Order: sequence, then C-alpha cells, then structure tokens
Amino acid sequence: MAGSSDGKPLHFNLFNNGSGHHEGAWRLPGSHPLANLDIEYHERMAQLAESVKFDSVFLADHVALDGAGYRPAGRLDPLTVLTAVARATRRIGLIATASTSYNEPFNLARRFASLDVISGGRAGWNIVTTAGDASARNFGLASQASHLERYQRADEFVAVVEKLWDSWEDDAVVADRERGVWADESKIHPIEHQNHFYAVRGPSNTPRSPQGHPVLVQAGSSEDGRDFAARHAEAVFTAQHTLADGQAFYADLKRRVKLAGRDPDEVKILPGIVPVIGSTEAQARELSGQLDRLVSAESGRNRVARQLGLDPALLPLDEPLPDHLPTVDDIEGDKSRFTLIVELARRERMTVRQLVERLGSGRGHRTFAGSPEQVADMIEEWAREGAADGFNIMPAALPSGFELFVEHVVPILRARRLIRSEYTGTTLREHYGLSRPRSRYAADGPAGER
Amino acid sequence: MAGSSDGKPLHFNLFNNGSGHHEGAWRLPGSHPLANLDIEYHERMAQLAESVKFDSVFLADHVALDGAGYRPAGRLDPLTVLTAVARATRRIGLIATASTSYNEPFNLARRFASLDVISGGRAGWNIVTTAGDASARNFGLASQASHLERYQRADEFVAVVEKLWDSWEDDAVVADRERGVWADESKIHPIEHQNHFYAVRGPSNTPRSPQGHPVLVQAGSSEDGRDFAARHAEAVFTAQHTLADGQAFYADLKRRVKLAGRDPDEVKILPGIVPVIGSTEAQARELSGQLDRLVSAESGRNRVARQLGLDPALLPLDEPLPDHLPTVDDIEGDKSRFTLIVELARRERMTVRQLVERLGSGRGHRTFAGSPEQVADMIEEWAREGAADGFNIMPAALPSGFELFVEHVVPILRARRLIRSEYTGTTLREHYGLSRPRSRYAADGPAGER
Repeated sequence: MAGSSDGKPLHFNLFNNGSGHHEGAWRLPGSHPLANLDIEYHERMAQLAESVKFDSVFLADHVALDGAGYRPAGRLDPLTVLTAVARATRRIGLIATASTSYNEPFNLARRFASLDVISGGRAGWNIVTTAGDASARNFGLASQASHLERYQRADEFVAVVEKLWDSWEDDAVVADRERGVWADESKIHPIEHQNHFYAVRGPSNTPRSPQGHPVLVQAGSSEDGRDFAARHAEAVFTAQHTLADGQAFYADLKRRVKLAGRDPDEVKILPGIVPVIGSTEAQARELSGQLDRLVSAESGRNRVARQLGLDPALLPLDEPLPDHLPTVDDIEGDKSRFTLIVELARRERMTVRQLVERLGSGRGHRTFAGSPEQVADMIEEWAREGAADGFNIMPAALPSGFELFVEHVVPILRARRLIRSEYTGTTLREHYGLSRPRSRYAADGPAGER
Repeated sequence: MAGSSDGKPLHFNLFNNGSGHHEGAWRLPGSHPLANLDIEYHERMAQLAESVKFDSVFLADHVALDGAGYRPAGRLDPLTVLTAVARATRRIGLIATASTSYNEPFNLARRFASLDVISGGRAGWNIVTTAGDASARNFGLASQASHLERYQRADEFVAVVEKLWDSWEDDAVVADRERGVWADESKIHPIEHQNHFYAVRGPSNTPRSPQGHPVLVQAGSSEDGRDFAARHAEAVFTAQHTLADGQAFYADLKRRVKLAGRDPDEVKILPGIVPVIGSTEAQARELSGQLDRLVSAESGRNRVARQLGLDPALLPLDEPLPDHLPTVDDIEGDKSRFTLIVELARRERMTVRQLVERLGSGRGHRTFAGSPEQVADMIEEWAREGAADGFNIMPAALPSGFELFVEHVVPILRARRLIRSEYTGTTLREHYGLSRPRSRYAADGPAGER
C-alpha cells in the first residue's frame, strides 16, 4: 500500500519553522535566529525544496505566544507568508495552518481560494483545532472548548468551507462582453448551511479556484483526530517514534478511511522525521550532541510539564516521570503528544533530563542522526514496511540541515527512485495524486450531496 | 491647509477594482473582464503606479456576493492579493480593506503586521464596518447590527488591534545566541483588554512590524463615519461630487480631528475622482458616452434602489425620484452614499435614468471627462481650494484609463510640482507624511495610555 512498493515515488513535504526543529538550533554559530520572520528566507527555502521536486512546503501556526524568552517564538500569519512564496515559486505546493476554533468559515474559504488562484492551484490547508486557555483568552473566551467539541466544530467548519468552495460551478463565469453577461447566475449557488455551530447562507464571493478544493491536510493523531482525518484529510502529518508505531498508525488510519467510505489511496500519510545529517554517522552524532547542549534543561522541562498537564516542580530532572500522571482523558490539549511522551518515557525508562534531550530534537517526531545513506535507508525502510506514503521533513537545524538533505540525501533517494525527478503535474493535488472534486451543485457533481 | 498650498506634493492612491470603476468598462473592446482575479494584472498595475511614485494602491472588499450576472463580481481576499503585490514592488504602499464586523481582532492584527513585515513597512488597513443583511447571513446572523453598533464595535476593534501592535516593544527581540536569550520578555506585554465587545489577553505572537502600526485608512462619510475617522484615521477616502461639497467635507473633517485632540495634518483627505481621459475634451466625452451605453439601465436602477432602500418598481426610469423617500435615519447601510444620491438627484432635477447614467460612471465619486490638461486643472483646483490633500484615482476603465493617466496627466502634474518625482521614504507612513507611533507600553511611549 505504501508509495514505494508500487513503484511510485514517495511524497516529500518541507516543514519550515525558521531556524530548525531542534530547540537549540537557533543558537548554532551561523544560524539565522530571525529566519521565521524573514520573507526572503521563506522564499529561498521553498525554491530549494522545489529544485528537488518536493510536493510541498508547510507552515505551522499558533494563536497565542508561548514563551519567547529562550527560543524563536514570533511568527507571521502562515497563509500570508505562503502567498509571497507562491509568487517566488512555480510548482511546489503551499500548505498553511489555520484554526477552525477561532476563524469564520466564510473568511477562511475565501483566503484559501485566493491563495489557490494566486498560486495557480497549489494551496493546501492544514486544519487544526486550537487547544489551550492562552489561545482562548485571545478570542474572548475564559477557557478552551473541550477536545470533543473542538473536533465537532471542526467537522462542521470544514463542511461549510467545502460548500462555499463548491458554490460557484467551474464554468459559472462566462465574461460575455457582447451580451453583457459576466456570470451565469444559475451556476452560482447559495449554500443555505444551518447546523449546530454555523449558519452561512453563501454563496462565496470568490469564484471556484483551480483545484476546486485546496488540499485538506490534518496532523492530530488522537482518537478524535484520526476519525476526523478519516473523514476529511487528503494528507496527514504525524509524529511516530518507531517503525512499529508508524506501521500501526498507518494501518489504523487507512482502515478508518475505508470505514468512512473513502478510498485509502486518497489519503497520503507522511510521518515527520527530524534528520540530523553528517557526512558520517559519527559527525551526525556530534552535531546532535552539540544541539542538545544548546537547550537549557529547565526550558525543556517546562515544556514537557505543560504537555503532560503537570506543575514543573513535580518533575525533578534526574528522576523518572512520577508514577501518578494525568490520564489521556484528562488532557484537553494535544492528546496524541501526551500519549507519545508517556509511552516513550516508560518504555525506555528515561529520566526527565533524558526525555527532554530526546524530545528537544524533534518534539516527539522521529529524530534520526546519521549519514546520508542511513537517512535514505530509514526513509526506504519506513515506506517499504508500510509506515509511510511519504515524509514530512523537519530538519533539526535550518537552513543548514535542509541544504545537506538536498545535497546529500536527495541524490541517493533519486537513484533509488524514491523521489520524483520531475514534476508531472502543476497543482498540489496532482503532486499528491489526488483527484479534483466536482462541485456538489453541478449537474454532474457528486450524487446526494446537494 | 491643502497639500499644494505649502509646496508639498499631493498624495495619490490608485483604487484598482479590476476592470474599471465605470460599470460598463468591462464590456469595452480589449477589456480584461477577469482582471480582478488576475494576480499578474494586480502586480502590473501596482508597478505602473509605483513608476510614477504614487503613495499607494488600494483594494476594496465585500463579504457577500452582490449580483454577478451583469458585472464583474468575483473577488479575491484583498490582503492576500496585496501580499503578492508586495513582492512585485519595492516602495508603493498597499492598502487592504478588512471588516471590523466579521473578523477577530487578534487574527487581523497579525495579518496586517505580517503584510507590514513582508512589504518592509508598506501596509495600510482600510477599516470598514460591513452593512447589509446579505453579509450578516454569511456569518451566522439573521440581520446586520445597527449602523451605530457597527461603529461602536469598530471603535473597540481598532483599540484592540492597536494594543496588539504595541504589545511587543520595538527592541523586544534580542536574538542573543551566546546567552540563549531570544527575546526580552519584559518588553512583551499582555494587553488584558476587556470591554463591551472584546476580551483579548494578548500579547500578539507577531513581533512589532516596521511601521509600528500599519496606516489606518477610512472611507465612510456619514456622521458616525466622520467621527470615527476623526478618532482613528490617518488617510480618508471620500466621495465628493462638487468642489463646494469637497471643501465643506474637508473643513468639517479637519475640524473634527482637532476636536478629537489630534493634529489635522496627521489625517490626509483624498477625494475619489473617476477620470475619463481623451486627448481632447470631445474624445473624452465620446468615451464617456460609450461607457454609459454599455450599462443596462435596469441593472443600474436596481443598484440605486438598493442604495435608497426602495423597491425598484417604485423607480420608473423616466421620472424623477419619488417625493417620499426613506430618511437617512432609516438607512442602516451606507448613509453617506444615500445622502449624496438624493441630494444630487434633487439638485439637478434628474430622472432615474439620468441619475443611473451619472452614477454608473463613478458610483457617486467625482466623474470627470476631459483632456489631460483639464484633469490636471481639476486636481490642482481642488487641492488649492482646500478640498483635498491628495486624490483617490479611480479610472473609469482599467487598465487603459490608468495607462492614459500615467502617460498624459502625470507629466503635467509633475511639471506643476503636484506629484512627487522621487520617493523620499520607504514606508507608507513616510509617503503620507505620518509619524511612526511608539508602543504605548514602552518606557518612552505615549503617556497615560498604558
């Protein structure tokens, strides 16, 4: 089922977070601590990813500030950044994170359709629900909605957005100067949506975009998150720490997609990997150690404490995790990250300090320090063994880590036919091998959805 | 008080709406009916405006579709378009419309700060309140809020956004690799806003942008609108039909600005003009007639009926406006446009057909068909006679009308020193001669605002 096994190349996404995914990377000599605020840097990274035919670049987002003291924390609006990147590139897909918890579907539908028009069909939306009281307090609420309600709201939000994207049929605009008819209004449809969370009459005032629907991406791996992905997602980013975990997740999600009545091939699964690359394994491990030493144990401990819903004082650095922890049901934030951290610490009997060092270099994603051959071997193994349709590449240090990946790992992947050597399509949908949806309102649109 | 009287050049904004501000323009031979959806077109127009040192380009917006049949009606999200335009230009200001009625201040503050970063300090926000039940129904409401409540909400919305823009002091980011300190957290401030409409804790997670605050622009000329402009706006777009109206508006608004405790020079007033240019006056009038004939009287009548809050059946084309009309107090939509239309029709004793033809070529803005000399004379007169600090140029037909303006009118304006011949600054604030605000939270920030 995985991409490599049927001779098709894998899918590759660059997750550009500015200075790199290891928390210490911004402190390396020669780093660019303001990278995430530098639009020319974002353009250059996307151009580099495009030069080796990656499917897409991706930007995360948060809607609250979370500790700016010890690591790069300022960020720009992702969709705005990727609009600039769109005009500096020609083929690569552009995936922006936006929250269903604190936006209006009408506005977000238009913004993604606009990016899709501007980029010629390369827009993707990473759908997130926003956890945390700090975010809620930026939007008039005292505390966050429950995990379940956030996902229920997200379900309806996506349904509204998809209807708005369908509200102009592909051939609604006729622009007939002679007759003075700009659009065929019989092909523009109010959506008349009214349900639990939203009432939106429509139609959109942005015509249908090149992809019909920008590609829907999702990255939460909790039970609710997996079911949501099974219903909506076309690409899934996920943090999986071992091959066995990756295989289990892959099989489980594809099963859920099928149960939801969709074709499992229409959902591409891309585990995140945080490659720390050296020309030899020893050099990679040396860089890895250097990065770990640049993260203060206290700041890492504070982050883990937040993820586990604990007071940091309950986590002495040189002791294992306490026996009594909250259960996943108590966690209203990121449930899947909670589970991953607890299982990792228990399984490998780590002290808090060891846990912090391991997580510092990837926040739960698969960290891999090795030679270019070893990185390529790992990619090949995960794809061959049914854990991945592709990979979300999250270099520990940026830009250096991605430059090394492009220069040393990509040629190996290409020799093994694991990465495309030329784009065969022009849209993000075409890169990921996804079909283009018809408008549900068109005479030949999906049956029963009107 | 006007710009020209003290030897400083006037300010010029290009209002690019795609195919031109005359409703018939998209039907001219050689027109581009899809211009408003064409990003390369938007880039080219901005580059052309920049080549003659305009202060800014501006995009309007609506959040409901309003009759796509007989005129170009699809539009992209303005801030998204201008982000692409930012990377295709270097100096010109970029003013995007966004509504205070249907956005969250936290999101909008970040988006404009992001555009300001990406453009190197060239972002402006045209603040609008959104009228109309059609818009309300796209955002979960059965009908719009009252005119007054919309402005009250806008007041508080702008206050929240300004606090968020101030929440990072200019020197908050230190990026000290050695010490491992990315930001000085004592210079990043929660805003703790809580009032009638909004509760926003802050701080922003986007650092302070080059201009500190993107430039605030406003375009409503009702009583509520003028008071709002007096409190917040730094540039005002306005529709004034005669020199006398323009003078009265100019004097009134500057007076209100002073009453609000602000420096009248910190608010630039730019009436809209819709130039129809020919190499002779006769040619201009011929083009003007051609444009008028391309607008169907019925579609124009429907628009006027909507603006007046009437059933179109009450407006026979060859009779004057009925004696009994709603009063301005009944109008919950655009009050200033209502007043302008009624006064114009009464004063010039027009039939509905004549009114529609007059309005078709500018929707209430000053339409001017003439030779390049005549257009320049009018600009000079309005500025000299105290009706304008600059002009919002709204060519009847685009791109042709703006190309003619650049080729034939600008050289005359330049010879008379009415337009700058070189940019002297790099930011939109500098172009408009506006000071850069300090953060209210800085030790040397505005007193009493903490």
